[in-house]
Amino acid sequence: MKVVVDLAVEPIGTGSTSISKYVNAAIEVLKRRGLKVYPAPSMTSFELEDLSQLGYILKEINDELEKMGVKRVVTFLKIDDRRDKETSIQHKLEAVNEQKH
Amino acid sequence: MKVVVDLAVEPIGTGSTSISKYVNAAIEVLKRRGLKVYPAPSMTSFELEDLSQLGYILKEINDELEKMGVKRVVTFLKIDDRRDKETSIQHKLEAVNEQKH
Amino acid sequence: MKVVVDLAVEPIGTGSTSISKYVNAAIEVLKRRGLKVYPAPSMTSFELEDLSQLGYILKEINDELEKMGVKRVVTFLKIDDRRDKETSIQHKLEAVNEQKH
Amino acid sequence: MKVVVDLAVEPIGTGSTSISKYVNAAIEVLKRRGLKVYPAPSMTSFELEDLSQLGYILKEINDELEKMGVKRVVTFLKIDDRRDKETSIQHKLEAVNEQKH
Repeated sequence: MKVVVDLAVEPIGTGSTSISKYVNAAIEVLKRRGLKVYPAPSMTSFELEDLSQLGYILKEINDELEKMGVKRVVTFLKIDDRRDKETSIQHKLEAVNEQKH
Repeated sequence: MKVVVDLAVEPIGTGSTSISKYVNAAIEVLKRRGLKVYPAPSMTSFELEDLSQLGYILKEINDELEKMGVKRVVTFLKIDDRRDKETSIQHKLEAVNEQKH
Repeated sequence: MKVVVDLAVEPIGTGSTSISKYVNAAIEVLKRRGLKVYPAPSMTSFELEDLSQLGYILKEINDELEKMGVKRVVTFLKIDDRRDKETSIQHKLEAVNEQKH
Repeated sequence: MKVVVDLAVEPIGTGSTSISKYVNAAIEVLKRRGLKVYPAPSMTSFELEDLSQLGYILKEINDELEKMGVKRVVTFLKIDDRRDKETSIQHKLEAVNEQKH
């Protein structure tokens, strides 16, 4: 069953208040791995077939940011792991957008 | 200066794994207050002109959920408060979507 | 009924990977307001009698950090609002420490 | 270099507002793996030598909760990955407690 993860990476100590290049680098890592990615204003959602893989992905993101000169990364994650029925980014989006119509 | 807030409400003890009606109730509170709201798959972003108002909004959401029978709400928030230049949901969305093109 | 809040402040763009002086400034704001505060390794817990007050507290913290030169603050919060029975930092600590013995 | 992780597990749909047995089950998983664990009121901190392992740990926790009857788990995580110098729960605790004295 798919797990939906929300991710925010916060580079600490960069000397600049702009962080979009680091956020975009994180999104690139997710896409290179072929994950379904949905960038939102402040968090990025992605789908995982196997929660076990999450650590490798986060490490790859932080390694990438380190190459860009970031010496400390604080990451915030929300993980939605539903075992009773299939979930997905698409399903979750529909659930919050139904009321709009 | 605007503050961008990301919100997730998790009702605890409802007896159902479905939470979309509670998430939608929270979104309704935000819209009734005239806030700019952007529902994402797992979090809802909204803009605040004045961070001082956040507590009233969260209390109104939890009161609404209590009326719906929820006895415990765990809320997760990410707040982006930028003092050097104007930020907004629109600006943040553009920053993460530029790379797509 | 008390609400238990967990807080993490992340100063963005400071040029230093050390953030403890900012975390301590946030804790000082909480203490000056007479709140019960429990500093943990990565988050700070505090008790609120009235959730409505949260926005004022967060604004005071960010104003304090701005005076210290921080131009952008990302804040993470977890709020536990229980309506069926009284909760507190002490109660929650006991619940997770019982198994130790 | 060690990574410090803060974890909160929220069981959804259990029918009870009490979650301490699930939180304690998560802590047990961390301890069985020999990790350094620091239970705080609302989050549990632990140290990881290798961030790659995080997914396996989270999956084991959610599998354990599923055995206890939980059909949906929402997890919140804060990860502090510092590459410029060694960090630890002990170091972070000292940094926020210095001002107390």
